[in-house]
Amino acid sequence: MRRATEVFERQGVNRTSIEDIANAVGIKREAIYYYFKSRADILLKIILPQSTSLVMGLGAIINSNLPAEQKLEAAIRNHLDRFNPNYLEMTVALREDHFLEDESKAAELRGVWNEYTHLWTRLIEEGQEHGIFKPGLDARMVANGILGMCNWMSRWYDPGKSIPIDKILEIFFTMVAHGIVDPAAAASRPAAPKKPARARKAAPKD
Amino acid sequence: MRRATEVFERQGVNRTSIEDIANAVGIKREAIYYYFKSRADILLKIILPQSTSLVMGLGAIINSNLPAEQKLEAAIRNHLDRFNPNYLEMTVALREDHFLEDESKAAELRGVWNEYTHLWTRLIEEGQEHGIFKPGLDARMVANGILGMCNWMSRWYDPGKSIPIDKILEIFFTMVAHGIVDPAAAASRPAAPKKPARARKAAPKD
Repeated sequence: MRRATEVFERQGVNRTSIEDIANAVGIKREAIYYYFKSRADILLKIILPQSTSLVMGLGAIINSNLPAEQKLEAAIRNHLDRFNPNYLEMTVALREDHFLEDESKAAELRGVWNEYTHLWTRLIEEGQEHGIFKPGLDARMVANGILGMCNWMSRWYDPGKSIPIDKILEIFFTMVAHGIVDPAAAASRPAAPKKPARARKAAPKD
Repeated sequence: MRRATEVFERQGVNRTSIEDIANAVGIKREAIYYYFKSRADILLKIILPQSTSLVMGLGAIINSNLPAEQKLEAAIRNHLDRFNPNYLEMTVALREDHFLEDESKAAELRGVWNEYTHLWTRLIEEGQEHGIFKPGLDARMVANGILGMCNWMSRWYDPGKSIPIDKILEIFFTMVAHGIVDPAAAASRPAAPKKPARARKAAPKD
């Protein structure tokens, strides 16, 4: 499984054959088919346990007694931890979109992800109900925003080169919880106009 | 180009053949090759002008005289506007990662995207230098977070069903600029402990 994950990660799922995986393990192609029906089958067996554990981690946070703001931080941490080098799986899962030719398998994975988004939305709603998070922000959209922020790491995060995950967590949490505008600066300047100025869009060159 | 975009969007780039595109246009496969060298060539011609215009739009915002906070809002708007139905191109571009078999073309596109991230980083840095944005947040990481938030829309945004882009813009801007925690609530409760409690992670079931 680890070898398969590495090959998927390196070559992309669409360019990886069962043969490639067999070569990486050092066994014959036929031996793989003894355990797995297809490439998609291998991929799902890599991704599903990781996704399920991500959802369970978030569930535990929501059911904890932490105040909303700390739940938010714990939930972002629960997600970002998947990007540590032991969880290559997440990287593969998030980069590849159209990998599952088998619709029933795709549906299974989609179900887990829907549950995850649903839990995130609940976390935001609960914080709003408790008066900790601002009311009036659509909780589902806030959840989508946070998920995007975290998931996009699969495009730029490099365990060897990027700043440590704890540092990224701190930045993302600060952004989402309190924003990047300095409250001191905000207090000292005049209120922003209701309708923000819209910069002229440059025409496409082509 | 529009027909090609629609087919790419519907079937995914990897499952789209030149034949499919020819059928959608109602011409012969050979006629396509008169204008384009390959599938990747068509895709690049769809994406590149859009990406370039996105970068130019951001450049114009940075060079404007708007205060930092309004630049931030305008820059998020510049990005989210690409998700309106006339810009299917962005959806295709962001969903497909490994589409360009041709390395020189992939490099060309990567160059545009690197420039875009670079400009976003500058926007954040300038706001910090002017004392509007909080100092000490790594500007590049903030940029990555915002880009993730916006780009992830390609996974969930549906022009027919999702809430209007203007509403999404408002939520994302509020999140990034001022955060979701209600300042009134934050002021009335005791200060959060320095080291946030860490929720126990549930063990994977598999």
